Amino acid sequence: MTALVLLRHGQSVWNRQDRFTGWVDVDLTEAGVAEAERAGDALKAGGFDFDVCYTSVLKRAVRTLWIALDRMDRMWLPVIRDWRLNERHYGGLTGLNKQEMRELHGEEQVHIWRRSFDTPPPALERSDPRWQEQAADRRYTEVPGGVPTYETLKLTIERVRPYWDAEIAPRVRLGERVLISAHGNSLRALIKYLEGISDEDIPSFEIATGRPRVYELDGELKPVNVFDLD
Amino acid sequence: MTALVLLRHGQSVWNRQDRFTGWVDVDLTEAGVAEAERAGDALKAGGFDFDVCYTSVLKRAVRTLWIALDRMDRMWLPVIRDWRLNERHYGGLTGLNKQEMRELHGEEQVHIWRRSFDTPPPALERSDPRWQEQAADRRYTEVPGGVPTYETLKLTIERVRPYWDAEIAPRVRLGERVLISAHGNSLRALIKYLEGISDEDIPSFEIATGRPRVYELDGELKPVNVFDLD
Repeated sequence: MTALVLLRHGQSVWNRQDRFTGWVDVDLTEAGVAEAERAGDALKAGGFDFDVCYTSVLKRAVRTLWIALDRMDRMWLPVIRDWRLNERHYGGLTGLNKQEMRELHGEEQVHIWRRSFDTPPPALERSDPRWQEQAADRRYTEVPGGVPTYETLKLTIERVRPYWDAEIAPRVRLGERVLISAHGNSLRALIKYLEGISDEDIPSFEIATGRPRVYELDGELKPVNVFDLD
Repeated sequence: MTALVLLRHGQSVWNRQDRFTGWVDVDLTEAGVAEAERAGDALKAGGFDFDVCYTSVLKRAVRTLWIALDRMDRMWLPVIRDWRLNERHYGGLTGLNKQEMRELHGEEQVHIWRRSFDTPPPALERSDPRWQEQAADRRYTEVPGGVPTYETLKLTIERVRPYWDAEIAPRVRLGERVLISAHGNSLRALIKYLEGISDEDIPSFEIATGRPRVYELDGELKPVNVFDLD
């Protein structure tokens, strides 16, 4: 039996401002830092330990991991960063305020953009400075086809799952204990797979920020026990 | 022409207490944190950027790197940790106060222990709790022959150099820009090689804490230019 722990980053500056963030590299707020500290303390108090850690290339997830590792006295653990664990790319919604969007486009449309499985948000034009900044960012030079102009949850899953299959799952099968610090939608991709959640139900599956979700898995990577760590 | 940067960690708690530290996992002081911040700021201001970072498995070096990467807005860069970049293992001197040692054993003996190339310090007995704690530490399970009971500078070089040759040098040859955050003696191993310093002279070669040492290297990894970054 091996344990896999998923950790959603703590509150970010744009979470607090209620803005669509996606691939924009926004940092944690003080509250987000405190959430990460509590997550690390909870993992340590719960006797959890790890062999390898994964995170996205976005600093809100990296910092959440750093803080948790520091609190666990595990700063020496190997950490692997990959853009495939990034948040869903919100396309043309990037940076926009959710409440303003609701007033402009209606509650229902915004709900669909946020919580449908495969309805795309407006695409970010390639001429848009928001897209050009990301496309020029060295950390994304190896993204196949270049930085996306949008992602649905379905498309997010389609880049998270192959990474899980190729990179993370083989280690879990070998008995390595893995900690993944990532984002609401990249973690939904993993939770959907691990817990067998339907396309219909996964968009509304809520993962608490800074609260480690623990999976005890059998040799087939089927969850024997799943719980959130307080 | 490719740039390699060596960074010695900022002041640690035991640096300040003037104690032999070696493999004990002592954290930075506030002054050490400030040194790391200045190092990151200097690298950013100097226009330096990197493809990959290396550090030891000791938190004073990891934290120095984290802080520098944060200041450079490069938290997403890959970081590879390896015990081979650890500080020299000070054996039986571990944890002892240098001034007390001078009073007990004489200035000259302590100087020899600290600054000779291959005179060993007293070994740490395997029954000693200091050794047993390290030997039980999961991060050292793959050290060939187990955790050392002491290291000379010569022995330190003998584990740093093969790591450089196998892991770091090939990347530098490919043109990757490498940042290494490590310790006085593991960095001496690299400086000795890069600058062709003799066995006699290397023990007294002083590397400033928190001040990046920049090497511009040709295709044979010969330094074309070497300077400390202010």
